[in-house]
Order: sequence, then C-alpha cells, then structure tokens
Amino acid sequence: MLLTRIKGPRDLDRLSLEELDQLAAEIRSFLVDAVSKTGGHLGPNLGVVELTIALHRVFDSPKDKVLFDTGHQAYVHKLLTGRQDFGGLRTKGGLSGYPSRAESDHDVIENSHASTVLGWADGLAKANEVLGREDHHVAAVIGDGALTGGMAWEALNNIAAAKDRPLVIVVNDNERSYGPTIGGLANHLATLRTTDGYERFLARGKELLERTPVVGKPLFETLHGAKKGLKDFIAPQGMFEDLGLKYIGPINGHDIEALESALQRAKRFSGPVIVHCLTQKGRGYTPALEHEADRFHAVGVIHPDTGLPVKTAAASWTSVFADEMVKLGHDRPDIVGITAAMLHPVGLNKFAEAFPDRIFDVGIAEQHGATSAAGLATGGVHPVFAVYATFLNRAFDQVLMDVALHKCGVTFVLDRAGVTGDDGASHNGMWDMSILQVVPGLRLAAPRDAEQLRAQLREAVEVKDAPTVVRYSKGVVGPAVPAVGRIGGMDVLRAPGAEVTPDVLLVSVGALAPMCLEIADLLDKQGISTTVVDPRWVKPVDEALAPLAERHRVVVTVEDNGRTGGVGSAVAQALRDAGVDVPLRDFGIPQRFLDHALRKEIMAEIGLTAPDIARQVTGLVAKLDGRYDSEPATAVD
Amino acid sequence: MLLTRIKGPRDLDRLSLEELDQLAAEIRSFLVDAVSKTGGHLGPNLGVVELTIALHRVFDSPKDKVLFDTGHQAYVHKLLTGRQDFGGLRTKGGLSGYPSRAESDHDVIENSHASTVLGWADGLAKANEVLGREDHHVAAVIGDGALTGGMAWEALNNIAAAKDRPLVIVVNDNERSYGPTIGGLANHLATLRTTDGYERFLARGKELLERTPVVGKPLFETLHGAKKGLKDFIAPQGMFEDLGLKYIGPINGHDIEALESALQRAKRFSGPVIVHCLTQKGRGYTPALEHEADRFHAVGVIHPDTGLPVKTAAASWTSVFADEMVKLGHDRPDIVGITAAMLHPVGLNKFAEAFPDRIFDVGIAEQHGATSAAGLATGGVHPVFAVYATFLNRAFDQVLMDVALHKCGVTFVLDRAGVTGDDGASHNGMWDMSILQVVPGLRLAAPRDAEQLRAQLREAVEVKDAPTVVRYSKGVVGPAVPAVGRIGGMDVLRAPGAEVTPDVLLVSVGALAPMCLEIADLLDKQGISTTVVDPRWVKPVDEALAPLAERHRVVVTVEDNGRTGGVGSAVAQALRDAGVDVPLRDFGIPQRFLDHALRKEIMAEIGLTAPDIARQVTGLVAKLDGRYDSEPATAVD
Repeated sequence: MLLTRIKGPRDLDRLSLEELDQLAAEIRSFLVDAVSKTGGHLGPNLGVVELTIALHRVFDSPKDKVLFDTGHQAYVHKLLTGRQDFGGLRTKGGLSGYPSRAESDHDVIENSHASTVLGWADGLAKANEVLGREDHHVAAVIGDGALTGGMAWEALNNIAAAKDRPLVIVVNDNERSYGPTIGGLANHLATLRTTDGYERFLARGKELLERTPVVGKPLFETLHGAKKGLKDFIAPQGMFEDLGLKYIGPINGHDIEALESALQRAKRFSGPVIVHCLTQKGRGYTPALEHEADRFHAVGVIHPDTGLPVKTAAASWTSVFADEMVKLGHDRPDIVGITAAMLHPVGLNKFAEAFPDRIFDVGIAEQHGATSAAGLATGGVHPVFAVYATFLNRAFDQVLMDVALHKCGVTFVLDRAGVTGDDGASHNGMWDMSILQVVPGLRLAAPRDAEQLRAQLREAVEVKDAPTVVRYSKGVVGPAVPAVGRIGGMDVLRAPGAEVTPDVLLVSVGALAPMCLEIADLLDKQGISTTVVDPRWVKPVDEALAPLAERHRVVVTVEDNGRTGGVGSAVAQALRDAGVDVPLRDFGIPQRFLDHALRKEIMAEIGLTAPDIARQVTGLVAKLDGRYDSEPATAVD
Repeated sequence: MLLTRIKGPRDLDRLSLEELDQLAAEIRSFLVDAVSKTGGHLGPNLGVVELTIALHRVFDSPKDKVLFDTGHQAYVHKLLTGRQDFGGLRTKGGLSGYPSRAESDHDVIENSHASTVLGWADGLAKANEVLGREDHHVAAVIGDGALTGGMAWEALNNIAAAKDRPLVIVVNDNERSYGPTIGGLANHLATLRTTDGYERFLARGKELLERTPVVGKPLFETLHGAKKGLKDFIAPQGMFEDLGLKYIGPINGHDIEALESALQRAKRFSGPVIVHCLTQKGRGYTPALEHEADRFHAVGVIHPDTGLPVKTAAASWTSVFADEMVKLGHDRPDIVGITAAMLHPVGLNKFAEAFPDRIFDVGIAEQHGATSAAGLATGGVHPVFAVYATFLNRAFDQVLMDVALHKCGVTFVLDRAGVTGDDGASHNGMWDMSILQVVPGLRLAAPRDAEQLRAQLREAVEVKDAPTVVRYSKGVVGPAVPAVGRIGGMDVLRAPGAEVTPDVLLVSVGALAPMCLEIADLLDKQGISTTVVDPRWVKPVDEALAPLAERHRVVVTVEDNGRTGGVGSAVAQALRDAGVDVPLRDFGIPQRFLDHALRKEIMAEIGLTAPDIARQVTGLVAKLDGRYDSEPATAVD
C-alpha cells in the first residue's frame, strides 16, 4: 500500500507517475470501503482523487492555501494530510465530513454552504498582498454547480479586477452539483468543454490563417493584433476571459500529469487564473456512475459491491411533503415548485414529474429562489420554495425585502430544521425560527407529525398576502400525536383534569411534541400538573396564549431551534406585551456552533431531553413554592 | 409645457420625436427644480430621462411590467405615470423616493436594496409562461453597478437558460453606482462600450473577409459557419452572449429614437435579450457632472444653480468614524477597510486616501465583503467592513458561517442604523440588533456619542477571535453623554441617591441615551426613582446586569431597533437564565415596515418618545403598587 506511507503532502513528491496512478486507485478503493460503512459524500470524492493529488504536488500546504468549496469533497485531502482513520467519519469524536481546523492545519474553510471559496480565496490573496508574502499561493477548488451561486460571481468580479494578484481557481467541472448544473453558465461550460483550449486554438488559428494566402498584411495580424476591440472578437474568450481571468483548459481531471502541468503554469502566472478541469462524479465506482439522480452525492451505509442501502428508509418528513405536494399540484393549478439545485433531497422530484412545466430549479441560488418567487407570486401563481433550513439564511434579505415587504404569497418549506447532527455546525437548521421572527407579516408553522405537515402545508398555500413557512426535521417522521382539544388556534395535547389548578403551561414546538408529553408525565410524578399545547403556527404568537398563560404559575417553551430570539423569546415578549408576568423558561439549542455527532447525542449534550427539562422545571416550581432559594443550575450553556 | 399634459404613458404615443426631446428637457429642468428643494436622488434620474420615455413608449405598463432596480431612478417613471406633485417628495404623506404600489399600479418593486430586479423579472416572466399570457412583456432596468451583485448573476444564469421565455434586460450603463463601478464586469462593459455592436461587427467582419481573396471555401464561412466551436471563437460574444442572452448594443441612452428601435427589437425577440444602454449620470446638470465623487447620486436641499448645499453639514456619526479610521490606520498597519460600492457614504474615503493599498471596494456585493473579510482575517490582517445597517442583511449567512464559525476577527461598522426615515421601509436599519443576536461569539457595540464611537471602534478592532459590530445612527451625532459610574462593563448614566430604593432599571441603547435620561426625569416627577445604564456592548448581555436588575422592581429597555429579538429580548432572556423574574418592558420599533417620513415623525408615531415611554412605565409601576388593575394600553402595535 502506498497510501499508508503518505503522512503528509510532501510525501507525494517522491512518487513516480505510475505510483501516483496506483495511489489514486488505492484511494478510490479506500473510499468505497470506508464510506460504505459509515455513509458520507462518496460520489464527489471519487471524482477528485487525481485533482487533489495534483494540487498537493503543486502547492505546498499549509503555507500555500488549498481551499475546497462546500467541503464535502475534502476526503481525499484528508487522506493526504495525515488523516486516514475513517472509522468514525461523521460520528462523535471521529473525523468531520468537512474540513476542520481542529483536525489539521491544512484545513481552512469549514462552512458547508456552497459558493464561498472564491470569497475566501480573494481575502487570503489580498492578505498575502498587504503583508508582502509573495511566495504564498492560494488555490481554490469550486464545482461548476457552485459557480451558479451569487457569492461566486461577486468574488469572480473582484478577483478578475486585480490583474497582478495571483490566485488559482480550479473549476471542478463534473456538470452537476447534487443533480445536473443548470442555467446559462452550464451551457457556457459545455461549450468550453467541447472546444479546444484557448492557446491551442490560437496556435491552430494562426497556422490556418498563415497558410491562407492574403493580400497585404497577414490576416492573422489584422484580426488578432491590430487593436483591442478586434482582438476581443477573434479570441475564444469565453466569459472568464471576458472578465479578465486567464483561462487554462479544459483539462482531463483524471490525468495527473496534465493536471500538474496546468496547475504549475497557473501557479507561475502573476495574476488570477481559471483552470477548468473535467471530472466525473462517482469515478471508478459503477453503482455511483449508474445512479442518475445524484451519482451517490451522499450515501448512508451501503453494501460496497452493489451500492444498495443496508437499511430501507422509513417514511420521512420529506416524503410526506413530497406526496402532499403532488396532491396539492392537482388541486391547485396555480401552485409551482422552486428548488435551489436540490430537487431530490427536498422531495420536489415527484412534483416535477407530475408537473414538469411548474417546477423551477434555480441552481445553487437561494437568493434568486426567494426573489423570483416574489415575482412569481406578483404574477399570480403561488410558489412553494423547498429548501434546507440552514440554506435559507442565504436569502434572509430577499425573504424580508422582496417577499414580505411586497406582501407576496410565497410558501417556504424548510427541511432539515433543528439539530441534524452528523454534517456538523453549518448544516444544523437552528437559525430559521429566530431570524424569521423579525419578518413582518410572515407566518411560521412547525408541524408536529405527518398529518399536521399535510394540513399546515395546505393552510400555508391559502395565504395570499404574506410569506408562510413550514419547517420540519430531518429524517423519519414520528407517530401521530393527537390533539385532545383546541384553544384559539392552538392544539391542546394534554390538559390536567378540570378539578386541578394547573402549574405549568408547556408550549411544545413541532416534532418535540412527544418529548413534551414525556416531560408532562415526569412532572406529574412530582405532583406538578401540566397543560401541553402545540401552537401549530408559532409566528405570530396565538392570541389565546397570554390569557391561558395567566392561569398557570409557570410557562415553559421547548423548541428545536437556537434559544436566542426563538419561539420562547417571542412567547415571552407576547406575555410582556399583554402584561402577563408569569415566570417563563425557554428551552432550545444553546447559541453556539455544534460539533458533529448523532442528533440524539447532541440533544443529550445540550440538555434538550425530557428528564433534563423536567428536572429544571421541577426546581423552578419548588422555588416558587419557597422550597428552595433558587433554581438548580441550568444545563443551558 | 408638454409635461403637464402627460397623465399616463399612453399620452406619450402621440408625441413626435421633436416633442419627445422637448419633453426630456422639461423633465430635466423639473427634476433639478423639484429635487433641489426637497433633496433626493438627482443624478440617477437625470441620467434616465430618455430611457424612461422610450420604455414607456415601447412597453404598455401596467399590463407590461416595467421594473426598476433599486428604485431611486424612478422619478421620471413617476412623472410619466400620473405623479407630478413632487412638493412633498420623501416626506410624510408625499411621494415616496422609490416606486410605491400604494401610489400607482405602474409600480412593482419597492425594495431599495440593489440587484433584485432580474430576480423579480425572471419570476414575472415565469408567471406569464405558466399562465399562458403571451402578450405580457417584462422589461427590467438595472445599472451596471448593480450587476456586480450576486443576485443579479443568479438571475442572469436562470434567465439565460430559458431560451424561449421573453424578457428584456436593460443595462443602464453609466459606469457607476454611487461611485465608479469596479471589477472584471466593469472592464468587460468598457470593452463592449468601445466596440461596435455584435451585429454591426458581423456585418463588417463578413465584408472584410469576403473582400479577402482566399483559396477554396470562403474564409468567413470557414471561420463562422463551420462548426459550433469555431463560431464561438469568431463571434464577438461577450459574456452575456456566452451565457445565452441575445445582446443588443451599445445604444446611446440619450437618443430616444435609437432607444425605441432597440427596445422594439428586443420586445419582438422570443427569448431573453440584453439591451446595453450608455447613459450619463447627472446628464444636463453641470454641478452634477462636475461632482466626481458620485455625480449627485443623492443630494440634500441645494441651490439649484450651483448645486451647493443650503445647510452646512454638522458633524455626523459617519465623519467621526471616518476620522478615527484614519488614526487607527496609522496606529495599526494590519487594519484594512472594506466597502461595498459606498466609499464616500460610509466615510471610508479618508482612509482610502491615506492608505490606498489597504482599502477594498468590492462593488455592490455585501456577501463578498463579508466572506473576503473572513479570508483577510485568516490571512492575518484585521478588516473593517463599513456598510449601511440594512444592507448587512444581505450578508447574514456569511457573517454567521464564514466570519463567526471560523472565529475571524472582523469588524462590521453599521451606519444608518435605526429609524432613518425619509428613504422608507427598506432603508431603515431596524434588523441588525435582532438577527445578529443569534450569531455565536459576535460582540455588538452601540455607542451613545462620538467619544464612545471612537472608543468602541478601538475596542472592536482589538478582538481577534470573533466578529465585532459597531452600529450607529444616520446624521448628526449628539452632544457627549457622560457616565457617572460603571457597573461591570456598563456605564451608569444616572443613579438614584444611595438612600433611595430604586424602582426602575432603564437600559439605554446607543444614541437613545438622552431620551432615556429624559424618561428618568419624567419618572422622577412621578416619584419613581430610576437607574439608567448604557451597556455599551449590548451583545453579549453584561453579566452585571441580572444582579443589578434584581435590585429594581422593573426593568425597561429602550432601543432604536425592531422589538422582536432585539436587545430587550436578549436582556429578558439573560434575566430568565439568571432566575431573575423582575417584570420587564421592552421598547423599540414595532415589527412592521415603516412608511417614509422624518425620523422624528416616525419616532412619535411608534411611541418611541420620552413622554410615551415614561407614561407606560408609570402605569406599570402603579400596577405593581396595586394602584391599578392593569397597565394602560401600550402604544406598541
């Protein structure tokens, strides 16, 4: 095994080309073997084996910065920088599924949100310039799919402007992000792929024209050299060169020698360069290559030979949404779907099959997803934009200023809300119920089970003059949680008998309903009587809540969202505004970045469990009874 | 006067070319006359007189949608759509400085944040397609500066992909937004400006090549028609055509006949088209043309003949920041400045003059401003990104996931925070202290006066492992507000004598300190003793606050920010977490979009005045005393 002898990038220097190819083969079989056991981003990493080897041969990390966009394609980079124990990949204490500065000095960007790398690269290159570090290089790897993101454009525009600030942009062009890349850029890349490279063209064009007998001045000079305007016309610019970026490519992204040669030239160049590499997602692994939807973009535990999942998936929140959207599509011809390059992961593929003219995949472009939705709504249709909760952060300004300010009937469906766990800090959907609280007029639903998801989605698309949001968790949807009553718009999930004076009003948010019922059981055993309500719509706060709260001694809120500014804070403010000064305690995710681990491990660590919360509420009630001077120390950090 | 006879766009139809030119001249003199009296966006509107006339001749608004990006260049549009009373421009009850759906059916987009129009246009065009409205057209006007925004790119990528969905994009190219447009795109536009249009080139190229005697197949056919690859090489694509957008231009943006001809061709085309118009900001008004910094982008009240301001500006928050940044730049060679196309408005121009190698104007690209700042900080320098508070919303995800997650020492300076007033809903900086509350590790300062701004800016740039924010108001900085003591990190602005048991703890945020002192005076007269503290750093909540609150009967917070999730909510949560259940009332901006008016008019309307707040606090104390059953109804809506 060559791989086990690679302790760091410089160990690559002494390998021959044959050995490098052997190393690539070893890495592929390592990846299939390791990731089939743990799950992870298999397809993207199989595609960048040679590219990553070539990058680490040409650039001297960590002095030089080798940066990966989105980060899920950094497994090969990990293997080459001293991290070959993949046994605990994406589990607590094991390797992160993304670059991690805690793991290695070779890692820089941990953010798994796409399209950021060029901004980072621009900043790092500027810092090199300001500090006069001329021998420090920056190389940024970005997928063709991520180039559709607005941040990437903003960065390109800046990078291109600084003609003498070196920076190497490697476009890892596999024609897809999760699914196939779409849009004008994708078409342009396709053109570049099918043509010769710039310099080869110039050479061939020169040859052709010089062979052509012309009168007077050689035509090549006339066309090529005469003046700038004409040069622009004859040269095979492509939009990158139009912007002012030197373009090298296209390069076979699985030919280490060609890659090294191109990267060396790029590194020597004294300004910004694009190296356009053609790679194949899932390279070398037949089950991935044959998987049309996403080439094994991310897999669970699979049989390595067949690529088939070991466990059959149970009904998920996503699949409930997917099925209901198809029904809604039949009932309401004015409903259209929007996805930001994640048709399958968000479950809009079924809708797309049923209504191919009513689905819009905008690429990795959440801002555009939101603003074009405002346009669609203004034009008379009702868009449903399904997106991971954490990625909606990208479109906060557009939700606020385009959708809400203009009172547009747009429904945002937030998948993977709350603690998601194994993808680490930037994938947890713990921000939406806080930042969306500030959006005037927006209504936010947190369904507690499949039936509520279906019902609230239907309620959401009835709203014509404001944004609506339906947010739910990742993974398997739990059993139905029936209501035992209704107060205002809130479902009562449990009520103490009429003869009992209730102590605690427990406000349960979304999928935490079973946990809240368990808390109530635990409190019951302490002689504390509890009313449990699910507000269903958590924004605005139901008007019936304050009068109900006033009939209890304590109000407790439990949500799968950051504590700061979340539902608990909104409830507290509504009570203050109503002059109801009943003590309140709000439980949720502490406002910090969470390390990767299983969801249940994280929930235990942050004290979002029934016993933890019951214990704290018991302490508070005891304090009110005068049995203790103070509450027990909280688990909240 | 022709102008007064124009009641709607169709009244333009019967005018001759000569009359249209006369109308243009009348509009220019109307604009100079009207805007010099009220202040407003003069330069941009002087630049689009002919363009707006031509648009309304060619497109049939409101059936066709004529859309303006950013909206401050819609004055001419207002004049042509029945709104010629500019006497109350940008004042309460008068015309908005932006499009306003309440004013006219001809208006669509009210959002003053840049780069949104193409997203809106894409959505509206998609709605036309879904609903089969083939005779409805969409025309979107966007400045060259706004094309640097990522949203514009995301939209272009989508628009270009739909080859048979008609949509007209008018690039209003005046080579600037506030200041000159920068970046690779600007360079490319410059190339397009100096060359013939695509079709004129093709015609000329064909002629040239056909005149050239060649052997065998005509060279033009060889080069142009042979195969796709070669066609790409010979054609003067420019990046827009590379993406798949038909390009028409460049067009003289002050030649109504040429504009109409180009727009007619674009309208007839069955797919997406870019019409590249060259205009001159400030056209026809010498004081604007001679103003290098921003061509009178936005002016206050001016003398119409000279363009000189009627009032001399008093020292503003911006100028205090501007001067301190220069001093900081001398003291700290590692400090660099970042602006998103607003060098002068945010006051970084002085820093740029002193340290030309340490200032980065990223264009209208707040996302890139934040992420490149993360790169700069990781590279070892300390960036100070000065930006209007409302525009930071665009970069929320980048502040969270790039800067904060990576613990980067980046300082954001938020100008125009709080109620700004006359620019309307989307310019008020009422979101920052709420959404930034959720960002782990971020520290946020709200200086109360010039001295505190200088001090807190210096404290901010000392923080190396977290984002810091310094936010302040628009306009004139008030007199110094001295501290009379210190508790923890908080300045005590007023304390009752030691012999008095204090009733109210008043937490004052930023520039509202004088108002809070006035509230304390009013409460004093009611026999209510008040402690006033300025926490200085409002995030995180000072640890000394809860113990201090516990020694009072009521806590009151006052902030110039949306109430939802703001400083008041954060203080309330901190008190709950400490088990301090003293009643709290939080005063701030109600969570709704505010109509344009003077700041003081808005503050009165929303009850953010000393008498309003004092009255409510008096009511609360009386309730606690048992003198009333309940508080008086609050002014909060």
